[in-house]
Amino acid sequence: MIITGSIAEVGKQVKEWKLNGLCVGLVPTMGYLHEGHASLIEKSVSLCDKTVASVFVNPTQFGPGEDLETYPRDFSHDCELLKSRGCDMVFHPDAAEMYPPDFATWVEVQSDMPKQLCGKTRPIHFRGVCTVVNKLFNIVTPDMAFFGQKDAQQLAIIRRMVRDLSMNVEIVGCPIVREKDGLARSSRNTYLNEQERAAAPVLFRSIQHGRELIKKGERDARRLIASMKELLEKEALARIDYVDAVDGETMLPVNILDTGVLVAMAVYIGKTRLIDNFTVDSSLLSGK
Amino acid sequence: MIITGSIAEVGKQVKEWKLNGLCVGLVPTMGYLHEGHASLIEKSVSLCDKTVASVFVNPTQFGPGEDLETYPRDFSHDCELLKSRGCDMVFHPDAAEMYPPDFATWVEVQSDMPKQLCGKTRPIHFRGVCTVVNKLFNIVTPDMAFFGQKDAQQLAIIRRMVRDLSMNVEIVGCPIVREKDGLARSSRNTYLNEQERAAAPVLFRSIQHGRELIKKGERDARRLIASMKELLEKEALARIDYVDAVDGETMLPVNILDTGVLVAMAVYIGKTRLIDNFTVDSSLLSGK
Repeated sequence: MIITGSIAEVGKQVKEWKLNGLCVGLVPTMGYLHEGHASLIEKSVSLCDKTVASVFVNPTQFGPGEDLETYPRDFSHDCELLKSRGCDMVFHPDAAEMYPPDFATWVEVQSDMPKQLCGKTRPIHFRGVCTVVNKLFNIVTPDMAFFGQKDAQQLAIIRRMVRDLSMNVEIVGCPIVREKDGLARSSRNTYLNEQERAAAPVLFRSIQHGRELIKKGERDARRLIASMKELLEKEALARIDYVDAVDGETMLPVNILDTGVLVAMAVYIGKTRLIDNFTVDSSLLSGK
Repeated sequence: MIITGSIAEVGKQVKEWKLNGLCVGLVPTMGYLHEGHASLIEKSVSLCDKTVASVFVNPTQFGPGEDLETYPRDFSHDCELLKSRGCDMVFHPDAAEMYPPDFATWVEVQSDMPKQLCGKTRPIHFRGVCTVVNKLFNIVTPDMAFFGQKDAQQLAIIRRMVRDLSMNVEIVGCPIVREKDGLARSSRNTYLNEQERAAAPVLFRSIQHGRELIKKGERDARRLIASMKELLEKEALARIDYVDAVDGETMLPVNILDTGVLVAMAVYIGKTRLIDNFTVDSSLLSGK
């Protein structure tokens, strides 16, 4: 497995692969990898000839007061995991390689989409995400790129950027990977102390509750959300940031629960902000 | 010569060329081609295996009240010129192919660079330029792209975008091509009536005057600009938008005339806004 922090070296290697007609997959990550990331690597390895993972804690997607400094890092463990799952190259640049001092070019979806859900409290987050993902796509020129459905708004915004800018890369969304008790895998789970960790599955219980209500015939978004919030509020350590039902493509609020609607939440457990979501599909609507 | 309006068709053709190891050049244009554009095509043909020209009057770089509707168009003449100079493919999309109705992703250099010179009166212009050029680079994936030095600020901003976003394309700036009387070639010259056309070379005379002053030892930007403006103001049909001396990379104003300084102007001749410029180099400074 090649490990490099150099943009030029990645470009050179990928160019050689492409001249040999090989298909290249990219898994962009911020490191501290878990089974969620591993599932993205495995998906890429199964669909592409070569898989590149990037490990870069992108400073421009963190707002003031967010957890850029404390974000967990363990690059040697990341490399072990990546190698064991068949990754071919790790791109691990430092911030100076990605952002020269007078960096000034931003890529931004300027619709209401990035202002919903997480965008309400993280106003510059998706500008940072789009810019760094755009840059990673330019550096790696992947045929396919793999993102987790846990970051559903990020996935929708990246799909929009790729479509709008005619970027020639297929975006593959992959299912949420969960712990045994339902907690969605996240690098930020490491922030939780024992008590908080025990409380954290309340997000998943709320999601299961919402799914059951839809199976039983609930079609009103407002009532669904109220009932999911009620469940969350029973957990003393939980503080709701949002629970919303939105169109899965545009991220705009909906009133009626129909196919393609995304039900998403952000909830603080202690000081740690966790997100989770599910998408309404035909099997849910038919009560299965 | 292939002529297409389809993004997918361009992608397919270029992919085939690249698999054969061919080097691809791109010349982005708004059509109504003249000898300035022809020089870019010839440069690309001389350096690349395949040359693609785009012909697209990009609506997003025109502000309200600007000349989007009246901008001159003659696609069959454009194709004749492109074919005669060895162009291999013309990409001629309609606006709907480039901008779907809910298009929302913008690429923007958010420094002071786009606010200088033309940016003072055209605030959204360079956002439109960066976005469309970014998109064209994604569609054509050229190894090299060719731009005229006449649009010096555009060229500097595109260089910055390419660097900041790690786009793997070499930007080649090409010299201004002039009429016999010195008027810089521009599609907008067609707006000039006979009287205005006779007045228009005042821009070039002002540039020659500025160059002479520097040869004779002038190093003060403010005095140079004042003297160039004085010459322009003698022409009754001319109305100055700006004459400025700026750093050739950052576009920020300078006081001292040194190597790499760009002296640029925009001047209305009647209702037609014309631009022109020159760069201070070592031969000028040494009096040659």
